[in-house]
Amino acid sequence: MATVRPPQDPEQDPRVKAVFDDIRATRGTDFINNVWRYLAFDPALLESVWADIKAVMATPSALDPKTKEMVYVAVSIANGCDYCTHSHTAAARAKGMTEAEHADLLRVIGTASRLNALLNGLHIPVDAAFDADAAP
Amino acid sequence: MATVRPPQDPEQDPRVKAVFDDIRATRGTDFINNVWRYLAFDPALLESVWADIKAVMATPSALDPKTKEMVYVAVSIANGCDYCTHSHTAAARAKGMTEAEHADLLRVIGTASRLNALLNGLHIPVDAAFDADAAP
Amino acid sequence: MATVRPPQDPEQDPRVKAVFDDIRATRGTDFINNVWRYLAFDPALLESVWADIKAVMATPSALDPKTKEMVYVAVSIANGCDYCTHSHTAAARAKGMTEAEHADLLRVIGTASRLNALLNGLHIPVDAAFDADAAP
Amino acid sequence: MATVRPPQDPEQDPRVKAVFDDIRATRGTDFINNVWRYLAFDPALLESVWADIKAVMATPSALDPKTKEMVYVAVSIANGCDYCTHSHTAAARAKGMTEAEHADLLRVIGTASRLNALLNGLHIPVDAAFDADAAP
Amino acid sequence: MATVRPPQDPEQDPRVKAVFDDIRATRGTDFINNVWRYLAFDPALLESVWADIKAVMATPSALDPKTKEMVYVAVSIANGCDYCTHSHTAAARAKGMTEAEHADLLRVIGTASRLNALLNGLHIPVDAAFDADAAP
Amino acid sequence: MATVRPPQDPEQDPRVKAVFDDIRATRGTDFINNVWRYLAFDPALLESVWADIKAVMATPSALDPKTKEMVYVAVSIANGCDYCTHSHTAAARAKGMTEAEHADLLRVIGTASRLNALLNGLHIPVDAAFDADAAP
Repeated sequence: MATVRPPQDPEQDPRVKAVFDDIRATRGTDFINNVWRYLAFDPALLESVWADIKAVMATPSALDPKTKEMVYVAVSIANGCDYCTHSHTAAARAKGMTEAEHADLLRVIGTASRLNALLNGLHIPVDAAFDADAAP
Repeated sequence: MATVRPPQDPEQDPRVKAVFDDIRATRGTDFINNVWRYLAFDPALLESVWADIKAVMATPSALDPKTKEMVYVAVSIANGCDYCTHSHTAAARAKGMTEAEHADLLRVIGTASRLNALLNGLHIPVDAAFDADAAP
Repeated sequence: MATVRPPQDPEQDPRVKAVFDDIRATRGTDFINNVWRYLAFDPALLESVWADIKAVMATPSALDPKTKEMVYVAVSIANGCDYCTHSHTAAARAKGMTEAEHADLLRVIGTASRLNALLNGLHIPVDAAFDADAAP
Repeated sequence: MATVRPPQDPEQDPRVKAVFDDIRATRGTDFINNVWRYLAFDPALLESVWADIKAVMATPSALDPKTKEMVYVAVSIANGCDYCTHSHTAAARAKGMTEAEHADLLRVIGTASRLNALLNGLHIPVDAAFDADAAP
Repeated sequence: MATVRPPQDPEQDPRVKAVFDDIRATRGTDFINNVWRYLAFDPALLESVWADIKAVMATPSALDPKTKEMVYVAVSIANGCDYCTHSHTAAARAKGMTEAEHADLLRVIGTASRLNALLNGLHIPVDAAFDADAAP
Repeated sequence: MATVRPPQDPEQDPRVKAVFDDIRATRGTDFINNVWRYLAFDPALLESVWADIKAVMATPSALDPKTKEMVYVAVSIANGCDYCTHSHTAAARAKGMTEAEHADLLRVIGTASRLNALLNGLHIPVDAAFDADAAP
């Protein structure tokens, strides 16, 4: 059950069609997943979300595509986004994440979450050694 | 201001000393950062936290050390742990994260957080294509 | 699947009936949504939750009803409450939120979430200019 | 203590100068707050964050500027971003939020957070009446 | 640095004085901690927050006072509220929490947080055996 | 829909069988709930998660088993973990939590969440009286 109703025939709107065409061309597949079909309820929002995802996730940058997808999964789990966890776990696999890497990713996320809670409970002062802003 | 008082001379307790010695040996440095000094208020908790961190972060595994530290940073930011964000950003740098990779990491975390919120607001049904549990 | 079992005939309990009657009178409808039917498992909790919601959301105050519902939606999305996001998106619509306003609300929530993550990752010092407690 | 070191003389970089000039022109003030000074460590990230903020918060849209700032504050509180809560509470005030509206905003955020937790603890099924995707 | 300015002489307002008097009488101490001094910026909000805290935390109920404070600490850590973590850790101690219980509390919170993350990453279907709503 | 596929016959792997046997022996029941069946996709992760849960939740410690389960529920609600909320609410009941205690637990969680949000919105300075690290 969604909070917006997706348009029945979204590509009748030329702005939506242009985004869908670019998704298909960028990804090399005809599959348009639900997030884009629902975001089509507001073409301007659709355009800005796709522009963001394309620039950050589908454009070569300092980190490789698989690493970026695994970071995305980690953030999505911490923020409790079900759809994002499913879609980006699938994307990480499509970009080469092995089953062993998936297990290791979950292991790191679990340990970090444990320590995050412990340290938020202890409120330990941050060591001066960690200050990026200090003079060298 | 912390919620526990760290012991004045923690290594007087042999269990604490054994953990601190192992931290120094594993990391190849004499620096013991505050998290361990404060966790020494309860030696059993100190031991189990260090065992967890050592097994997950300091033992060779499917993901390389730099990637694991960047995932740790991503989770710590999402969970709002200040100490963890500082200490693991420093650790990621120590394991080779460049300034460009740090910026890219933050870019991915920011975009994921934006989409996490949007999709938690839309409650879009997860595509069947993302079901890892489906028969092939 | 819920973690409590709602009473079969909740209005047999006069405390529950009094709350349900007040909900119907305050909202001008016979519809009692599930949250109240389930909270009826503990009449004292039901009473205090309804008193809180009525005082904050159904009583004239500094902010208009539509704005209050949109703020409620924003908080519910950030806290990952599915039921709340659905019910208060519906309430905001019932109080006049247009489709364009809904899209704009989601846009602001998305951008805020992106920046929240970035700034939790950077730990930038707060400008003195933002100190409400400073002498004028 | 920040995790990145802001450039000493950021406007020597023409990309940074262009963004700072646009911030000053858009806001009608010479004040450049810390978030922009620190984001200048990566000009591309600075540009994309400012473009996002400008399009969403400083461009006329369906919701008025004060409402958008209050929604931004609500999200920032829920996500635990200190800097964002301070800077956007100040921005909401600058756009007309009264002290009574601030108190009312906090009241709604508090009640929503209480109910978010209760309903995440109860896992009540969402009423069919809230399904935006249902046929009318 | 706070987002509101606390009144200089809060007890000049009779509504504030009545709340402060009740806090002193209920707690048997003259100490009024900062949360009440700052909430005094809006007497109606102060009254409703104190009424909530008094009814839930300072009134005999099914759970004993020490357990309630420990649950409060757990929630505050998970929600990243620094002030709340400090004040309710102190309150739990005042109500009898020992150092060993504090360490055990943190241990449970850490393990729960680890598992919460793992299971949010796996999205395992909930066992029918956990359905409180099922017929016996 | 899960993000990993559970093994069809998990106990064929002797490491998985050893964990399942220990779960059955420790809990005195033949019921193995889904979390263990899915974690079996990675025997090392299964072993470390069970070792953690067994040491923290199934071994006598400073806090009694019912209190530990209620704290676990509180954390799971705050972190938005559906599976964990269901399974540990059931576990708390199995260890003696009454319906009145469940309602009281939810009441404390709700009030803490409200105050967490309010105080994250106000950023009140922590009273020196709460400093565990201060000299006595």
